[in-house]
Amino acid sequence: MQELTSFLNTFGINIDLALEAKDLIRGATGREIPGVVEEKQTFPHGSVTIIKITNKQGEAIMGKPCGTYITIEAPNLRFRSPEVQESVAEVIAKNLISLLQIPEKATILIVGLGNWQATPDALGPTVVKHILITRHLHLQMPQVVANYRPVCAFAPGVLGITGIETAEIIKGVVEKVKPALIIAIDSLAATNVSRLGTTIQIGDTGISPGSGVNNKRMGINSETMGVPVIAIGVPTVVNAAIIGRMALENYHQRFAQGRLNHYGVKQVLEEIFQPFQGGLIVTPREIDDLIENAGRTVTRGINMALHPQAPKEELEALL
Amino acid sequence: MQELTSFLNTFGINIDLALEAKDLIRGATGREIPGVVEEKQTFPHGSVTIIKITNKQGEAIMGKPCGTYITIEAPNLRFRSPEVQESVAEVIAKNLISLLQIPEKATILIVGLGNWQATPDALGPTVVKHILITRHLHLQMPQVVANYRPVCAFAPGVLGITGIETAEIIKGVVEKVKPALIIAIDSLAATNVSRLGTTIQIGDTGISPGSGVNNKRMGINSETMGVPVIAIGVPTVVNAAIIGRMALENYHQRFAQGRLNHYGVKQVLEEIFQPFQGGLIVTPREIDDLIENAGRTVTRGINMALHPQAPKEELEALL
Amino acid sequence: MQELTSFLNTFGINIDLALEAKDLIRGATGREIPGVVEEKQTFPHGSVTIIKITNKQGEAIMGKPCGTYITIEAPNLRFRSPEVQESVAEVIAKNLISLLQIPEKATILIVGLGNWQATPDALGPTVVKHILITRHLHLQMPQVVANYRPVCAFAPGVLGITGIETAEIIKGVVEKVKPALIIAIDSLAATNVSRLGTTIQIGDTGISPGSGVNNKRMGINSETMGVPVIAIGVPTVVNAAIIGRMALENYHQRFAQGRLNHYGVKQVLEEIFQPFQGGLIVTPREIDDLIENAGRTVTRGINMALHPQAPKEELEALL
Amino acid sequence: MQELTSFLNTFGINIDLALEAKDLIRGATGREIPGVVEEKQTFPHGSVTIIKITNKQGEAIMGKPCGTYITIEAPNLRFRSPEVQESVAEVIAKNLISLLQIPEKATILIVGLGNWQATPDALGPTVVKHILITRHLHLQMPQVVANYRPVCAFAPGVLGITGIETAEIIKGVVEKVKPALIIAIDSLAATNVSRLGTTIQIGDTGISPGSGVNNKRMGINSETMGVPVIAIGVPTVVNAAIIGRMALENYHQRFAQGRLNHYGVKQVLEEIFQPFQGGLIVTPREIDDLIENAGRTVTRGINMALHPQAPKEELEALL
Repeated sequence: MQELTSFLNTFGINIDLALEAKDLIRGATGREIPGVVEEKQTFPHGSVTIIKITNKQGEAIMGKPCGTYITIEAPNLRFRSPEVQESVAEVIAKNLISLLQIPEKATILIVGLGNWQATPDALGPTVVKHILITRHLHLQMPQVVANYRPVCAFAPGVLGITGIETAEIIKGVVEKVKPALIIAIDSLAATNVSRLGTTIQIGDTGISPGSGVNNKRMGINSETMGVPVIAIGVPTVVNAAIIGRMALENYHQRFAQGRLNHYGVKQVLEEIFQPFQGGLIVTPREIDDLIENAGRTVTRGINMALHPQAPKEELEALL
Repeated sequence: MQELTSFLNTFGINIDLALEAKDLIRGATGREIPGVVEEKQTFPHGSVTIIKITNKQGEAIMGKPCGTYITIEAPNLRFRSPEVQESVAEVIAKNLISLLQIPEKATILIVGLGNWQATPDALGPTVVKHILITRHLHLQMPQVVANYRPVCAFAPGVLGITGIETAEIIKGVVEKVKPALIIAIDSLAATNVSRLGTTIQIGDTGISPGSGVNNKRMGINSETMGVPVIAIGVPTVVNAAIIGRMALENYHQRFAQGRLNHYGVKQVLEEIFQPFQGGLIVTPREIDDLIENAGRTVTRGINMALHPQAPKEELEALL
Repeated sequence: MQELTSFLNTFGINIDLALEAKDLIRGATGREIPGVVEEKQTFPHGSVTIIKITNKQGEAIMGKPCGTYITIEAPNLRFRSPEVQESVAEVIAKNLISLLQIPEKATILIVGLGNWQATPDALGPTVVKHILITRHLHLQMPQVVANYRPVCAFAPGVLGITGIETAEIIKGVVEKVKPALIIAIDSLAATNVSRLGTTIQIGDTGISPGSGVNNKRMGINSETMGVPVIAIGVPTVVNAAIIGRMALENYHQRFAQGRLNHYGVKQVLEEIFQPFQGGLIVTPREIDDLIENAGRTVTRGINMALHPQAPKEELEALL
Repeated sequence: MQELTSFLNTFGINIDLALEAKDLIRGATGREIPGVVEEKQTFPHGSVTIIKITNKQGEAIMGKPCGTYITIEAPNLRFRSPEVQESVAEVIAKNLISLLQIPEKATILIVGLGNWQATPDALGPTVVKHILITRHLHLQMPQVVANYRPVCAFAPGVLGITGIETAEIIKGVVEKVKPALIIAIDSLAATNVSRLGTTIQIGDTGISPGSGVNNKRMGINSETMGVPVIAIGVPTVVNAAIIGRMALENYHQRFAQGRLNHYGVKQVLEEIFQPFQGGLIVTPREIDDLIENAGRTVTRGINMALHPQAPKEELEALL
């Protein structure tokens, strides 16, 4: 476990998915994690795992703040089927609603994190582009949107392009818009390639520093923002160093005698990735398709969750 | 003149360029405009006209606030020549510097107005994408950017996509970043097709409500923002109704007897444009090229103006 | 009529829609056009006009070759409703099928004309990007596509970007692929702004020289290609000179005494458009949306027409 | 060596760079390769290695046809410096000229292989978009392009999108255009991440089946095309399986006793990559920038090589 933590640190890798963090820790220790409760459900196209971190001990072990982390796993999402998309969107909606503890007509601000110019990081801006926006209509022609909640959205960009901390920009806008709740969308990194485009995490603790494809430096959460922050993320990349490590570990477990020399592993991988300083990612060849497909599914799920009174056909039409 | 104003109002048309407003008024009245001072210079590839509105009377007649409006006209900008681009960028830099009344190392916030998803309105986001960003480097590794001023930039989107007033978003960010000055970049509408992509307006009064390709509803200026706002705009479209009116006027002046029936003109044009409610634009077929070319020239001009101590080769390299 | 022809020639304007050509001629002469037969139907969201040019006299007057021109007019297409899209797609499919005189499993080549880098001309490449492609699957795993016809598609680009006549590129590919029929998709110019994105023309005479947003220099038809060519086009622009002329004509008809001086009209408009040599277009502000919406509708219509045995849900899923 | 070949086959991996193939074989055998001659030069920003495969034995060992493979390695290309770009473009031009055995004014066809919708495969279409096209001007206004060779270009798309073999499309166009020579541009896969965007291979044997990011199924070479084919490629991805293997090999060489069980390696990596069937790639986070930068450099190099009589400023201006 310590070796793993040290490895992740060397390569600046954060475990974005609570489910993966839990599996890594359980795999290493073989025991229940104190302060962590888990519940699993299935649905026709996959499963939903709800992990709750309930105390400081759980926080420390998991490296994530107390709260609820819902992970939807739907392997068939990879195959652009509208039926699967709709089924998963409904599961997103249902689970997202379970975290919305706000009045029915309270304003929600959607924040699309990431960089629309760098394909693997474009999930957030893609959702902002397609999400149903109604806040201005509530001000201009309220009768038209009587069945809809006021929703607004924007994409704050990334530090390297704006020169401004993402959290700072969001905080500025929050102070003007005064939403009751923020939903932040982000591209995540997974440790397992099978999760790319097929896993969706919904959490009520916001965005932690160091997370996402394009690492955030400041948290985006209820402490920094002053209102609850729900984060929705989809893994679009695996850090390339993890592939190397996984190959070495799996091989040693099965074919080699003797313990793996973890210092050696780090050294070997550092050399391989040295020219890009850890900035290399593993992603499917069709990364552009992956982002579009995942973005569409998340968008539908959010729309359904936020506007339960709107007729479903109308919602689809507005997509 | 009243007829013109009434015509523009009918079609929701704003005269974005001070130079055009002045010419329209002078053309109609044939007289000097009280409270408006003009000065004209030339440079190898064009001319620079500096219009100053100096009092309330000038404001009322021109429909624009007191301040300085610099118009660079460079017909050859249409022909993607790097030489012309560089020459115009230098003229932009020189004139922009004349409006920068702030300390050498004060932070500047560049705001790219408009919608990057709608080609004719994408100038602002294009400049934000390419402009040199240094503010975060001043915080992280100040020695590397010793020759550079702290600059940050972002694109706030448009009301129809975010559900939030553009000015509100900017104000929120301004309160966090606390820049000494804002430079706002916008796509403009002209009344003359020859200006498309070849005219650049730099003004020190910010952005007025109702201006730009995608009309703003709230001003972005020193009153609303609390710091000076310099606006840089390039016409990328002509409102289609203006073409119809211009055809009628020019024809009548030269070929027809009798006065033009202005009520009839409005009626005829309203019928032609009715299905799109005035939202039709005239633009060159190669609108995508036009935006890229104009965006590049403005970006270079701003970079030169903001970092006078940086070696020119370095600036070009960073482009 | 001669005046109109001379006007269109001056500005290099082609009347792309047979329906508009017919209306212009009928409007001028007030009489039936010999060699031209017309039939009109309606459907819930619009109408279908089938014009047949049946002899040389009709050809000469209409300026279009003998054949069938089906025009679907659906004003509600402007409002991105999936219901309207589907209804229009079904009408496209039904009418397209009426022109498909080829065996059920014969190969079809879809050609997306135009330039994907210039938004108003991007309809063809957009359809190619989304259309269902099955020809390679028929070669690799025929059982999977047993219910589908072999379809292939490509976008040949435009002369200014490739340096090769579009018709030459297509002819080369046709000689390799040997399709039984070509369907060519193109952005058109209309003379009436209300048609932008709401009219669809399907014709069995291919593409004429001089037509489309980006004029073709060589015809793409059964003579040049050796197989039947069906053309599907959607107006995305109006030539800007036409707006000026329309304003003058409508005004004079209603408000002015005396005949319009057509030489004067030309002169006035030439001056207005001189800097861009007629290359200015009128288009909605949301040209990017328009292209996406129209492209999607045409794509669905073609898919339905070409694969009548495929289950509809499967077709939608593959979109 | 056999193990390597078997590993590459399992994962459907082709060694695109002759220099890498040679180094792998030399590394495994430690001996000169019969039928392979190598020459190395340096230039301020890197080195040029010219590998000639001179006989059947060399072909068999290298897995590549007889011919010349020029590899330019310029590690600084990663840092978007215009100075480095220009220096590398000049080296490209010089080496490309050495392979052009055709008359000064003979027509050249540039073919941009790959898929512009999938970022890592978009190098070819990017070059086609920016390359100087003159063939149509030679037909329309020959005096304007007197100093230029006739050049045309197109992007044939990929099998999965067109349903047509890429080589078939090219062959069809070649038979119409009848160029004296083809230059084919392609995104390549490397085995070493340090090559991404920094290595350029120029070869006179065309494109082999199975090569490139998006594997070709038919060769594009003088046998299939009937004219010489020069291929220019830049690695933009590393196959993810190679990273795993490299980690295992480097680790075992240095830290482990006992031989690596190659069957075990394959098994472990197959499991890791199973969900994507080998379709996972390793690429820098900024893949969009990488493609733009490499595309620009290759474009400049080709322009310089093809138009030696054109003034350099004019060429740059036309970029």
